Amino acid sequence: MRVLVPDLKEFRTLRVEGVEFAFYSESQLPEGEAEGAVLWLAPAPLRDRLLTWPGVKWVLTLTAGIDHVAGRLPQGVTLYNAHRLHDRAVAVHTLAGMLAAERGLHRFRDAQQQGRWQRTLNLGTLDGADVVIWGYGHIGKILEDLLRPFHARVTGLRSRTPAAERDAALAEADWVVLLLPSTPETQGIVNADVLARLKPGAWLSNQGRGSLIDTGALLAALDSGHLGGAVLDVTDPEPLPEDHPLWQQPNVLITPHIASSTRDLIARGAEYTRAFVEAMAAGREPAGRVEPGQKY
Amino acid sequence: MRVLVPDLKEFRTLRVEGVEFAFYSESQLPEGEAEGAVLWLAPAPLRDRLLTWPGVKWVLTLTAGIDHVAGRLPQGVTLYNAHRLHDRAVAVHTLAGMLAAERGLHRFRDAQQQGRWQRTLNLGTLDGADVVIWGYGHIGKILEDLLRPFHARVTGLRSRTPAAERDAALAEADWVVLLLPSTPETQGIVNADVLARLKPGAWLSNQGRGSLIDTGALLAALDSGHLGGAVLDVTDPEPLPEDHPLWQQPNVLITPHIASSTRDLIARGAEYTRAFVEAMAAGREPAGRVEPGQKY
Repeated sequence: MRVLVPDLKEFRTLRVEGVEFAFYSESQLPEGEAEGAVLWLAPAPLRDRLLTWPGVKWVLTLTAGIDHVAGRLPQGVTLYNAHRLHDRAVAVHTLAGMLAAERGLHRFRDAQQQGRWQRTLNLGTLDGADVVIWGYGHIGKILEDLLRPFHARVTGLRSRTPAAERDAALAEADWVVLLLPSTPETQGIVNADVLARLKPGAWLSNQGRGSLIDTGALLAALDSGHLGGAVLDVTDPEPLPEDHPLWQQPNVLITPHIASSTRDLIARGAEYTRAFVEAMAAGREPAGRVEPGQKY
Repeated sequence: MRVLVPDLKEFRTLRVEGVEFAFYSESQLPEGEAEGAVLWLAPAPLRDRLLTWPGVKWVLTLTAGIDHVAGRLPQGVTLYNAHRLHDRAVAVHTLAGMLAAERGLHRFRDAQQQGRWQRTLNLGTLDGADVVIWGYGHIGKILEDLLRPFHARVTGLRSRTPAAERDAALAEADWVVLLLPSTPETQGIVNADVLARLKPGAWLSNQGRGSLIDTGALLAALDSGHLGGAVLDVTDPEPLPEDHPLWQQPNVLITPHIASSTRDLIARGAEYTRAFVEAMAAGREPAGRVEPGQKY
């Protein structure tokens, strides 16, 4: 079996019985057919080449989301994604952002840049906080575990949650954490109407996709003071242009879509690939199969 | 029984059977004797007046530390402190700082101020981290609970921990968290020698007292790159003057001695006082008695 993998040193050392790895990069593509392609960190043109590679029967994307691949896959090619590779770091990143906001670390960082020792008592601890996790899957469950020592009251919202139940939960929340995937149904799901339903002073965390939030409505809710603040790892547009007004919001904490990043992410991705390809080569079905029509 | 308490609205509403509260502020002192004094947020001259108030038999300081009171108390006056009022918030604040540092939130905040969407993979999660808690008391135990979901390996150091054992733990640590009190023995306990024993890239968190760290040695360890960074809620000197070089260290996260602050701290302090005075009035011994000779 021949498998295309990214040309990174962590992948160069992969060894699996009966498998030949072929390495691709933006500047150099291997020759010949391949049965599988492992997709990662590939810009759109390279990605499209790999998806339609001669002989390819399966594609593994080492991302959690599949919106960059879905609809571009030729008939008969099976897609797998790699949720498990990312879920833990995203949950930890989410908690880090919530705690930083509660403890005012963003404002103290701003004061630090100006050499100002300026105390405030207006700080929280997350203890007993009402947390709504909107998009309650693997990451949400890990986040719930991480919130347990804070005795937070967690409500998970799923796509099948009735609207009335959802709205009641939103009205009580101290924090609304978005972990939804990007689909036509979730586009702009957090709009002016939803933001108005939140308790005054509530905070929003978006660790899902930028398209979930109507950015104009978010800015209005921040400017009016109705929304306490927001922690955003994803934005719309993304990347956020230098002159975008979100950057300047004092109670918005922005990270550049790195929630799942860790210094060992590439090593973990290579190890994930090894186990995946080993299963394939042994005729076992690996985890992460995306069913036709599945949107995330 | 007459008790002096700070003139704050949360204390104005206190009612305890058989107790008369008298309210003090920097600008206004009550007249007449009092049996007890509740000390909080009082600058040094006011504090010294209260400690030597006519008739005072006991003093409750609503702080965790007692170094600002010890040695200034007249013979025969019993001192109480209020550890429990602060421990939880300090532990949460400590975790918040560790996670913020691991996730690079300080650097992303700096980038945000410049409108820069700049990704990095060099991020951690605390998962499986080796954490040394130096000064392992109430706060340390709560912090250990908060670190449990990260499967961190926690080593608590106490004053009776043998030096060899301490040094071995320091050499393995990813994080060294200082929760020691300020005593003659702990003055400058983290000096150049201790910093040199740490693993390259290790981080330091000081949530105890500024005097624990030799600031010059800390700056040298940061400049050399041996120390990964530091999260400081307390500094030496404190407050840190505007032109102090610590402000400018890229991997130093400074908060202005607010680890125990929460927006409900004064309300909690008033409630703590109510329960304390109730016990006193009922002839029960309240928690927090500081024994003569006790240094923290």
